[in-house]
Formats: sequence, structure tokens, C-alpha cells
Amino acid sequence: MKTRVETVAIIGLGLIGGSLAKALKDNGFCREVIGYGHREPSLRRGLELGVIDSFTLDLDAALSAADIVVICTPTLVAAEILVDILARTEALEQPPVITDGASVKGNLERAARSACKEFPPYLVLGHPIAGSERSGVEAARSDLYVNHRVILTPVAENSSEALALVSDMWAAAGATVVQMTVARHDAVLAATSHLPHVLAYALVDALAESDESDEIFRCAAGGFRDFTRIASSDPVMWRDIAIANKAALLQAIDQFNEHLQQLRRAVVEEDAAGMHETFTRAKQARDEFAAILAEREQAKTS
Amino acid sequence: MKTRVETVAIIGLGLIGGSLAKALKDNGFCREVIGYGHREPSLRRGLELGVIDSFTLDLDAALSAADIVVICTPTLVAAEILVDILARTEALEQPPVITDGASVKGNLERAARSACKEFPPYLVLGHPIAGSERSGVEAARSDLYVNHRVILTPVAENSSEALALVSDMWAAAGATVVQMTVARHDAVLAATSHLPHVLAYALVDALAESDESDEIFRCAAGGFRDFTRIASSDPVMWRDIAIANKAALLQAIDQFNEHLQQLRRAVVEEDAAGMHETFTRAKQARDEFAAILAEREQAKTS
Repeated sequence: MKTRVETVAIIGLGLIGGSLAKALKDNGFCREVIGYGHREPSLRRGLELGVIDSFTLDLDAALSAADIVVICTPTLVAAEILVDILARTEALEQPPVITDGASVKGNLERAARSACKEFPPYLVLGHPIAGSERSGVEAARSDLYVNHRVILTPVAENSSEALALVSDMWAAAGATVVQMTVARHDAVLAATSHLPHVLAYALVDALAESDESDEIFRCAAGGFRDFTRIASSDPVMWRDIAIANKAALLQAIDQFNEHLQQLRRAVVEEDAAGMHETFTRAKQARDEFAAILAEREQAKTS
Repeated sequence: MKTRVETVAIIGLGLIGGSLAKALKDNGFCREVIGYGHREPSLRRGLELGVIDSFTLDLDAALSAADIVVICTPTLVAAEILVDILARTEALEQPPVITDGASVKGNLERAARSACKEFPPYLVLGHPIAGSERSGVEAARSDLYVNHRVILTPVAENSSEALALVSDMWAAAGATVVQMTVARHDAVLAATSHLPHVLAYALVDALAESDESDEIFRCAAGGFRDFTRIASSDPVMWRDIAIANKAALLQAIDQFNEHLQQLRRAVVEEDAAGMHETFTRAKQARDEFAAILAEREQAKTS
């Protein structure tokens, strides 16, 4: 028998929250999706588009109506609103299950531990690995999470019921749910996402500063286009992620830099064998990664 | 009146040489294209596909028949074969015009200067900024160079006739021909192409080494896929380019590293304003670059 709940509240109705709302309504995981946020126009638009069933500007109303509350705001806002929500739910006898979709988990765990005497058993932190170049509720798609991973980062204090409910919710949206520790999540995401963004920003900034930047960009080709695409990402979002995931990001930068300096030495010494070995190992890993992606794409279309 | 020549010899018949041969035959720039190389099967295949009109395994025969000789081999092979060709043409009264399509120009200029008493006026070094994921003569396309840049790097000793002829040849293939010094070319290419490849290889190698590499790659998303695509490039080709363009590549690595360390400090200090400024400047430069590319794409399809 599939899990069903009455009401899900989405806190912050953009691409991430809107897509989840749509998916949960489409597959009947809940009877009703309520939207909550500061920006009434987005909520109204979500209602018009049928992404949500109703909305409120009153946080307490959203919390008391919901079986599950999903915080879908940007990273640093999520920490603030989580503290606010915990202050309102800590005293409740039957608090809703609370989860989120933010890119960093460590700052939210720390925020919850500072805000509450004990880590709330009903708070299950999570992160869907999905997105789009587009943003806002208009871009919401019910299949955004299909065959994408959602990483849940339960802690010892979590109730198994709350964990199961959040897991079922994402599975209902079509996602593959995996679990890891908060520290592991933040290290993996630093390596595969936060570090690449920092590298792309650093490279483009270095080139843009040059006197010949115009000539440089005019002579760039397809490889450069793909490599730097993520430097077109939202500066506010990535500034916030870099701050929220500071420790893991610094470790990833340093680990990367060690490898870069190794390669630099190989260039200095014209160590053809060493370079060939490194490039070949990297190519093999990248080709295997491409095969994983191709498999996932095929699963999505079949 | 459009420039026409009798015969062009292509030295090394892969994607780059084959596509040039096809383009020159299609638009009637020359009456005949001769292929020369070490691998007879590739040459025979090129003949079957109509990419070339004839082939020879005798370098002297190719040189004596040609008005223009285009070296289209990989980077380090190009330096060797250039020295060989110069030894055979230096004594000729009417040597053919010689040019090339290799990714680095400084090593070829040095090779020519060591091989000859004077830099040969009829040697015009060049580099088409075009390529494809595919390789080999089977992948040759007559439109590979259309609306792509070709950088020619003339030196003081070059004859203006030789320079004009090479320029006309690439224009006939649909390319936009620009000129810069050898040093500038190698610096620009180090920044936009050779450095990004080194960074992508270094990142993927750093992640592949980790105990959790499987988990890391399974959790990676679209941004990581694009960022690391060039780490799937041919290790031999990039090892050779890194060695051939050593000085400019080291300078690019160091300039990049300065910017990365600046960003690292901003993360350490949680300098939100500084990060926001850098990310915003980089995003703006990347968005402008995307606009250049979009314009070029449009010119290609219209």
C-alpha cells in the first residue's frame, strides 16, 4: 500500500518547491498542497497554474494544516526559516514532519541543534539533486525529480516514521532516495558541485581581467563554453552555498589544488609519462561517469 | 577575383585535414587535393570517400606537386614533420607555401628557426579553432570551418604573398581569418583551452582517487557533466599540447591559481561582498561570451 498524507506545505514556491508540489498532486501522494512564502505574486501564480491548491501568508496556519512541511527556499534563508519553524513547532504535541531541499546540510543541522534542546526527531534534512537553468514557479515541472537522486541525511535522533515518510514522499515524486551522513553529503556536494562552480568563476574572472579578454573570448571554442557554463549561475545562490558549506568547500579546494600543483610540476618537468597517466586515469573516470549518466537518461525516457 | 591554386597537399588525413580537403574541393579553391601520410588505410579511405583526389606515401612527391602544403598532424608530430619538410624544401627554387593546423605555434616557430638559417618566408603558421568529438577522415565535414576562427601567426620574415594565399585558403573554407603574434596565440589558447583541460583532468583525477568516488559520481548532476566533459579528451593529444605550450600554460595555471586563492580567502573570511562581486563579474563575462557564441551560431545557420 502506498503512503498517502492529507496535506503538504511548501515553504518557498520556486522551481524546486513548485516541481515537488506538482509531482505530489499528480501522483496523489497528498490530497492538498499549501504554498507559503513572502511573495504573494508567486503564490498567486502558483495557484493559477494549478501547482498548489491554496496558499497562505501566515506561517502558523501553514504549519498547523500540514502533515509534511518542505522548506524550499535558498540555502541561507532555509536556515533562518528553519529556526523560525522549530520555535513554532517545538511545543506542539503533534508537530508536522519537517524536511527541506537546500544544497548544504551541515548549516541546517547546526541551526537546529542551536535552536532546540534536542535535535527534533521529526526534522529530516534532505537534498534533491535536480535543477534547471530556469527558475521560479513558472518553470515547475512534475517530472523534475524522476530518476534523480534525493539524498536524505538522517541523524541518530530522527524518528524512523518521519524518515520513512520523507523518503516515500520523494519516491512518489519519482526520485531515487539514498541516505548518507550530513558530513558525507556536504563533502560529496562540495566536490561535485560547489568546487566546480568556484573553479569556473575563478577561471572566467581571471580571463575577464586580462587586457585581451575580448580576443580571448572571441577565440574560445565549444570546450570552453561547456567548461564555463556554470559561471553563468546565480551569484547570490553560490555565495550563500560557499558560506554555508565553508569547511567542506575549503577541503575540496585544497585537495583539488594538490592535484593541480602535481600536474603543474609534470608540465615543468615535461614529464610526459606522468601526464599521460593522470590524463588517462581522469579520462577513464569521466567516461565511466558519462556511462552512468547515459544509463540514467535511458531509464528516464523508457 | 577569387584566388585559385592547382594543388593542395594535406599532410596527415584526419578530421582537421580531411575537412579542409573537402571544403577546398567543394568550393573550387584548388583543382586537386593530394593526401600524404604514414597510414595507407586512412589515405585509401579518404580517396574512397572523395575527400582527396589522390594520395602518396612519398613526401617528396607530395611537396613537388603542391602549391600549398598543410600539415594537419598532432602537435608534436607536426614539429618533427615540419623540420623534415623544411630540409627538403629549403634548397628548392620555388618551394610550396607551407602552413599547418596545430594547436601550439611557439614550438613550431622554434623548430623552424633551429632547422633553417633564416625563417622560411613561405612558412605561415596557423591554427583553426574548430574540432569535433569525432576524429579520423570518416568524420571530415566540408563545413567544419564555416564561421570558425582561424588564427594565423605571421612573423617578420614572412612573404606577404604566402600570407595572403594561406589566408585566402581558409577564407575559401568559410573561416574568419585573424592574425596575432605567436606569443599572443599561445597565451590565448593556453587560457581558453589548454588550462581548462588541465583543470578538468585535475578535478576528475582528484575525485576518482577518493574512496567515495563511486558515490561522488553517482550524485553528480548536469553542471558537473558539462564542466568535466573535456576530461574525456584524448590523453596523448593533451599531453603533447601541454609540453609544446609549456611556458604559456604554466603562466595560465599560475594566473588562475592566484584567482582561486583569492576566492579561497574570501570563503575563509566569509567575505560575502567580495564573493558576490567576483561571481557577478564572472557571470557577466560568461553571459557576454554566451552572446558572442549565440551570434556565431545564428550566422552559421542563416
